[in-house]
Amino acid sequence: MPDIARERVESWRSRMQAELQQNVVPFWMQHSLDRENGGYFNCLDRDGRRFDTKKHVWLQGRQVWMLSKLCGADPSRADTSRTDVSRADNSRAGPSRADLLDAATLGARFLREHARRDDDRVYFSLTREGAPLALQRKIFAECFYVLAFAEYARASGDDSYRELALSELDAILRWIDDPTPLGRPRLRGQIATSELAVPMILLNLVSEVRGAPGSPTFRDREDYDRIEARCVASIRRHFDRERGLVFETIGADGSRLDSPEGRLINPGHVIECGWFLLDHARRVQDRELTRDALAMIDGALELGWDREHGGILYFLDSEGFSPQQLEWSMKLWWPHCEALVALLMAWRETGEARWFERFETVADWTFDHFPDPAFGEWFGYLDRRGVVSQRFKGGPYKGCFHVPRALFLCERELRAALELH
Amino acid sequence: MPDIARERVESWRSRMQAELQQNVVPFWMQHSLDRENGGYFNCLDRDGRRFDTKKHVWLQGRQVWMLSKLCGADPSRADTSRTDVSRADNSRAGPSRADLLDAATLGARFLREHARRDDDRVYFSLTREGAPLALQRKIFAECFYVLAFAEYARASGDDSYRELALSELDAILRWIDDPTPLGRPRLRGQIATSELAVPMILLNLVSEVRGAPGSPTFRDREDYDRIEARCVASIRRHFDRERGLVFETIGADGSRLDSPEGRLINPGHVIECGWFLLDHARRVQDRELTRDALAMIDGALELGWDREHGGILYFLDSEGFSPQQLEWSMKLWWPHCEALVALLMAWRETGEARWFERFETVADWTFDHFPDPAFGEWFGYLDRRGVVSQRFKGGPYKGCFHVPRALFLCERELRAALELH
Repeated sequence: MPDIARERVESWRSRMQAELQQNVVPFWMQHSLDRENGGYFNCLDRDGRRFDTKKHVWLQGRQVWMLSKLCGADPSRADTSRTDVSRADNSRAGPSRADLLDAATLGARFLREHARRDDDRVYFSLTREGAPLALQRKIFAECFYVLAFAEYARASGDDSYRELALSELDAILRWIDDPTPLGRPRLRGQIATSELAVPMILLNLVSEVRGAPGSPTFRDREDYDRIEARCVASIRRHFDRERGLVFETIGADGSRLDSPEGRLINPGHVIECGWFLLDHARRVQDRELTRDALAMIDGALELGWDREHGGILYFLDSEGFSPQQLEWSMKLWWPHCEALVALLMAWRETGEARWFERFETVADWTFDHFPDPAFGEWFGYLDRRGVVSQRFKGGPYKGCFHVPRALFLCERELRAALELH
Repeated sequence: MPDIARERVESWRSRMQAELQQNVVPFWMQHSLDRENGGYFNCLDRDGRRFDTKKHVWLQGRQVWMLSKLCGADPSRADTSRTDVSRADNSRAGPSRADLLDAATLGARFLREHARRDDDRVYFSLTREGAPLALQRKIFAECFYVLAFAEYARASGDDSYRELALSELDAILRWIDDPTPLGRPRLRGQIATSELAVPMILLNLVSEVRGAPGSPTFRDREDYDRIEARCVASIRRHFDRERGLVFETIGADGSRLDSPEGRLINPGHVIECGWFLLDHARRVQDRELTRDALAMIDGALELGWDREHGGILYFLDSEGFSPQQLEWSMKLWWPHCEALVALLMAWRETGEARWFERFETVADWTFDHFPDPAFGEWFGYLDRRGVVSQRFKGGPYKGCFHVPRALFLCERELRAALELH
């Protein structure tokens, strides 16, 4: 920790832990569990009151993953490398492991029973009872289903969930090569494109499925290595090294597209992708990839940080046109969450104080604007000036995921730094 | 014009006319025409520069309609009831009728050649050259195709466009009864709903297709009467008379839905629907419908007017929850355009000064915030405080339509009031 006082690091570590265990996890444990039908209510107003009973599968899956992660691995398996926040510090204890596992089981069973069709497509949303409401022509519901079951299999020790995760992952890999079964029409004027979201989430997914070193792996290590290498190559084609920019959409041949989609920069997405790459590069010991990931994070924050009002802008056009997304200038919770993780990883990777200082700048703005001490959890949607625009804590795209994941990972990074030095 | 001084009315009339002819129509005539491939560039930056070459069919169709409307009817036909702004006041002349018709023809031919498939579906967007890019699972591109060709047939005297409009309208009517061919999956958990947008646009469409009294009609008057009556009945079921609210989505059985969609209020939409109804009620001499339409406009403005910053909010939840739409508090050009038309129609219908005063309140805010005297046309997207959020003049959902239509109709209403008194 060159140049950074141990007390500063410890102060952030304990703040992350307290926020996770005392302000965030309890909100979801208290308000989201549907004991009657299973699964989670994920549309929750500021005070936890339900404003909709729909169950969005992205959030169901992410919450199963998060609660399972907080459980730590199945205690009957040898896995000393895994972090277990719920046991780490009993003096500031959040919910017990038994309660977390019980809540994870509630969602896992609901997903298992209702989310997946015979053709392996996974619904986007379900009724309270589990009847299908919507199906997207995308693979993301499927990805969060895999994420959920990979981690839940570890937490519960129930291998049947591992099998479900693996077979769904196979379907996703098939659809990435041939998306025809997803039902989006291919029209003559379209050109083939590559979307950053796909290799990025797949990289994270494989990293989650294969597990931490020493934990049970799901299939041949080589399989995973091959998919990960393909994801990394694909992500790199989105990166313009000279300009330090990562484009959301490029031609399938790697070309830049001169259109609003082709010029679109989503700084939060790039920063999240950056830490996925840092995490991967650390494991495979790829110094060049680390350098690229750091440059991506750096470029996205340079472009995305709002020098007028603070915070990270949601969308930008690389050539300075107005983004078409009406919400482009809003400050969303998740890019800030991702930035906290990415900046701490960058600091731990490089040992350079400037990354920690940047972390503190983002963390100060984030903790000043997003947490809601009155009712728990964080607000998700602020206007450009940082004023709350949407007061709800959970909705179709916000649930028990980005906030607790960031707090969990930040605590882990800070603790590792303290232990190292 | 009880209580309203003639000079105030004339001042607004001439302002509307000047804005239309000198600031708005010239922008589109100068920047949007694609002489090489036909059709219109509709993605235009503040200064008219293209930021995308895609051609969005909603806007192509709407621009054909608008330019044809500005032509007035085919001068070879007897149609003295129609307004022809281009001939109305040569001292402040905009483009000539010949130029307007030429520009309308550019779009009509492009649409005819590229927009429609053999199964009567109409694409959502096309490349610059006309190759298909996207197809929605909705009927709105189809509606604007009909709108365009109905008016273009009148302006040009070319009856083949009338036939195309009529056959497409038949397809739309079929799909409203059975949307299966649109390709949206019906899932077990869904309940059948009624969307305000559908009867509302269909009412306007039929009114446009049947034409002004005295103008050539396309088919049996009774056919149109029947469809219009069905639309009116359908719209009325969305209206909660006690609360003065019109809901965007209700159950197909007329029930209120306790969900974000069921509680959604789109004040601009309601106001636009209100003047469609006023216009219809005036023609069929239905006083009760006039009262309902006035109550809808009144209720939407009461709820939608932002007492803090002025302007009309984009989305609201009837029970005061945060709308899920991130852009809910933005001020968009089109609700303000619709409000100007609706309030003048309400004034003309009732003769009550309070409607004219309300018109002036909205018009003052609108003219203070939206027009861009530097480069022409109006900005489309402001934040809650009225600051420009998106600087472009044309995009996938904004083109040569709401602004010139509102100015055209406001001028017509104001002129009619002046002539009457």
